[in-house]
Amino acid sequence: MNIEKNQAARMAVEKIQNNSVVGLGSGSTAAIFIRLLAEKVKKEHMNIVCVATSIKSGELGSSLGLKVVDIDDVSSIDVTVDGADEVDYDLNGIKGGGAALLFEKIVASKSKYNIWIIDSSKFHKKLGNFKLPVEVIKFGSQRIFDCLQEMGLNPTYRLNDDSTRLLTDSSNYIIDIDIQHVSDLKSLSNALENLTGVVEHGLFINICNELLIGGLKKDIKRSELDDRLVLN
Amino acid sequence: MNIEKNQAARMAVEKIQNNSVVGLGSGSTAAIFIRLLAEKVKKEHMNIVCVATSIKSGELGSSLGLKVVDIDDVSSIDVTVDGADEVDYDLNGIKGGGAALLFEKIVASKSKYNIWIIDSSKFHKKLGNFKLPVEVIKFGSQRIFDCLQEMGLNPTYRLNDDSTRLLTDSSNYIIDIDIQHVSDLKSLSNALENLTGVVEHGLFINICNELLIGGLKKDIKRSELDDRLVLN
Repeated sequence: MNIEKNQAARMAVEKIQNNSVVGLGSGSTAAIFIRLLAEKVKKEHMNIVCVATSIKSGELGSSLGLKVVDIDDVSSIDVTVDGADEVDYDLNGIKGGGAALLFEKIVASKSKYNIWIIDSSKFHKKLGNFKLPVEVIKFGSQRIFDCLQEMGLNPTYRLNDDSTRLLTDSSNYIIDIDIQHVSDLKSLSNALENLTGVVEHGLFINICNELLIGGLKKDIKRSELDDRLVLN
Repeated sequence: MNIEKNQAARMAVEKIQNNSVVGLGSGSTAAIFIRLLAEKVKKEHMNIVCVATSIKSGELGSSLGLKVVDIDDVSSIDVTVDGADEVDYDLNGIKGGGAALLFEKIVASKSKYNIWIIDSSKFHKKLGNFKLPVEVIKFGSQRIFDCLQEMGLNPTYRLNDDSTRLLTDSSNYIIDIDIQHVSDLKSLSNALENLTGVVEHGLFINICNELLIGGLKKDIKRSELDDRLVLN
């Protein structure tokens, strides 16, 4: 898969214009993009300002010489390049395997254009092979867990290697749920957002503008989507 | 107003049954309730377990001898008694002047019955005299501020006495907005919840089951509300 991730990241780097504000995603594919971007910026003496979606990505970017600033120091982000855990044919996706979903969604919301880079194993007709992460306030999280249980979504707390509960960069918990049997993603999204104590969830609907798939070497733009399945 | 707050708190304490789980609100009126409850529990040798809506209320309860447990240690809360900054004739309210709105809403969500105690100055036909607090993730909060500005809601960050931005118990910021000119509270609530980075807001719609007003000595139950204005 690393070859495919590299391909996708390389396709994305070629799209970065000089004098732009770039959002840096999180995860293994985004990390490859960050490395390639740093190389390109150095080689071509580009003027690029970056905003990171996680502490880790920010540190990686800085260590490679990229200029990483706080999100509130830019008025908007021109393009954000991020990975995804799973993407469907409508370019909706699940993100947050790396638990950075909240910052990823905030950065995506501030971005004029969002590019996702994935390997071909993550592209599916329907979402659900991957668990959907839900970020929740620690205080009272058991009630949310119980609600998700009642909704038939098989919740599990995301754990660290030592079996303690994982904490996100905002000191929240992640509860993973199973959405294999969910057909209406928009309704699920609304139901989750209406649960008091849910900070965010990893469903990204109508956010990705362009999907680059390594392996398939596909470049799919939302603006070109129509009723046909994009793979036909 | 202290006499009225005392009256309301006293009316609430009389409603607390033995062997129940009680949610402790936050703010000055709730603090009076906590003191009166502790007195009653001691005097009548009651078996009461409490869950607090803020670190401060929990510490106050414990210091007075109440048994305060973590919210996840109870399966549900029988009754929560909390103050409110403003309540309208439909028993909808604004809460969060004390910045505890998130925990207050989580506790209210887990409560079978919610009693609010206020002095008569806080009871208005329409909400909006009081600013509505919106709790937001620090990361990228300026974008939310700008959105609220565009919506005509005159946002301001809640500050500490030393002019630094106030942090909630969950380390988030509070942005106060002006809803005087908002007529559809439910739509506003949905719009706020759909903004990525908003954790919660202080609009409590359809949550209060019973309102006790000091001064007026009124006891208004939601179940008895009808199309008449409750004050007629």
